[in-house]
Amino acid sequence: MKQHEKIAMIGAGNVAWHLAPALEAGGHQITQVYSRQAAKAEQLARHLYQAKAQTHLDFSESEAELFIVAVSDDAITKVVQQMKLPSEALIVHTSGGQPLEALAKASTEHIGVFYPLQTFSQRRSVSFREIPICLEANDSDVLHRLIKLARSLSRQVKLINSKERALLHVSAVFANNFTNHLLRMAEQLMHDHQLDFSLLYPLIEETVAKARAVGPTQAQTGPALRNDEKTISHHVNQLNAYDPAYTEVYQAITRHIQTFSRSSREYHE
Amino acid sequence: MKQHEKIAMIGAGNVAWHLAPALEAGGHQITQVYSRQAAKAEQLARHLYQAKAQTHLDFSESEAELFIVAVSDDAITKVVQQMKLPSEALIVHTSGGQPLEALAKASTEHIGVFYPLQTFSQRRSVSFREIPICLEANDSDVLHRLIKLARSLSRQVKLINSKERALLHVSAVFANNFTNHLLRMAEQLMHDHQLDFSLLYPLIEETVAKARAVGPTQAQTGPALRNDEKTISHHVNQLNAYDPAYTEVYQAITRHIQTFSRSSREYHE
Repeated sequence: MKQHEKIAMIGAGNVAWHLAPALEAGGHQITQVYSRQAAKAEQLARHLYQAKAQTHLDFSESEAELFIVAVSDDAITKVVQQMKLPSEALIVHTSGGQPLEALAKASTEHIGVFYPLQTFSQRRSVSFREIPICLEANDSDVLHRLIKLARSLSRQVKLINSKERALLHVSAVFANNFTNHLLRMAEQLMHDHQLDFSLLYPLIEETVAKARAVGPTQAQTGPALRNDEKTISHHVNQLNAYDPAYTEVYQAITRHIQTFSRSSREYHE
Repeated sequence: MKQHEKIAMIGAGNVAWHLAPALEAGGHQITQVYSRQAAKAEQLARHLYQAKAQTHLDFSESEAELFIVAVSDDAITKVVQQMKLPSEALIVHTSGGQPLEALAKASTEHIGVFYPLQTFSQRRSVSFREIPICLEANDSDVLHRLIKLARSLSRQVKLINSKERALLHVSAVFANNFTNHLLRMAEQLMHDHQLDFSLLYPLIEETVAKARAVGPTQAQTGPALRNDEKTISHHVNQLNAYDPAYTEVYQAITRHIQTFSRSSREYHE
């Protein structure tokens, strides 16, 4: 079992920018960084110890033994088909939204998924120690190798198959994209009424802290949950006067809270 | 200007439970706690230094000079009409959803609003120092007295009129009730597929931290924002197979993200 991997990073976007330095910090070596755009490959390579930038996909002479494909979802299959790999190479992708089979046309039989469940952005550092790394592989040798690699980065290493990962991905859309959009909506509404959005931050932070402490089902409050139709219709009137598109979102979520609460979904006591 | 207020707390629910001890810690005296239910009034009164529990609304002999009405929104008007107050009493309510005029029928002309913008729950302590306290009053003497009181609790004291407070209240529904409901939806979806919801907590916490650091407009990502129709339709298929009510919420928010992004609302650069 390899302790330290020689790794080629395919892609120089947000995931690669965070993952490559974390892998180096975990004792691994990044040999190459690939991007179609030379400037992007070079920028990330300069940020690393010994990595070389490259803009072609011929890795047949590479000393890397592990190839991490961290490109956008719709580019994975195409990039992988074009890659020339050394024999016995292991190739993994980092996507929550793509199945293991997205790598089926790679010129190696050793394939896997190495999905760090986090949102990565430029100029925001995140600690990998607490990020769940979700692994999948097509054989147990590969899986054990990925477990070892993941454990060198994170305390949260999980085996998650493609079907589960797809569910996790849509759940993450609710928990990240959609919650953030609701914050955008609140920000916009307040901004347009000369109210400072930062007034809401103590509330937003307590919302998350409370959901974590007692679970979001126990934490739910508000007019929709208590069927306070008077407050709901007051809110609807306010939002209609502001922007009917806001009303649609308000009503869709309010209706769902009302039916969700009455259903048998309340598995927490 | 009074430095230390003698205060009667009208109500013994979550707001009263958090506010009364904070007021004592700020150097004020809680003289009485009112609740219709004797046990509730007594329970909170015992938690305080010298407060007496009472179940009737005759405060004509009370030594309190400030009456804080922290009852449910729909009870405010009725409770206030029934209260007998000493002369020159000041009465305030603590509601985000009610205008100043909810106190119009009080037997005093000194009325105000003292709205701490936070979600309060039993058994979760919160620090008042960072909670915005939103104030309104019908004259400047009252307002200055409330400012002094609020500053003895919090570093965030804001003057917010009834119309602004109503907007703040609906914004808080988006930022708290609705975001929490999305977390509930994610939790339920994962639970029903034997996935551990706690996998999402690093993502949820980074979502809020990033929104705070760069603003939620800059922080928005995901398939809806980038019009990734392939991923969206894959998510819709998954959710339809699970529960069509989930699809409705997914599509309502996705549509709004798509129109919101294309509109002129992008005031951040």
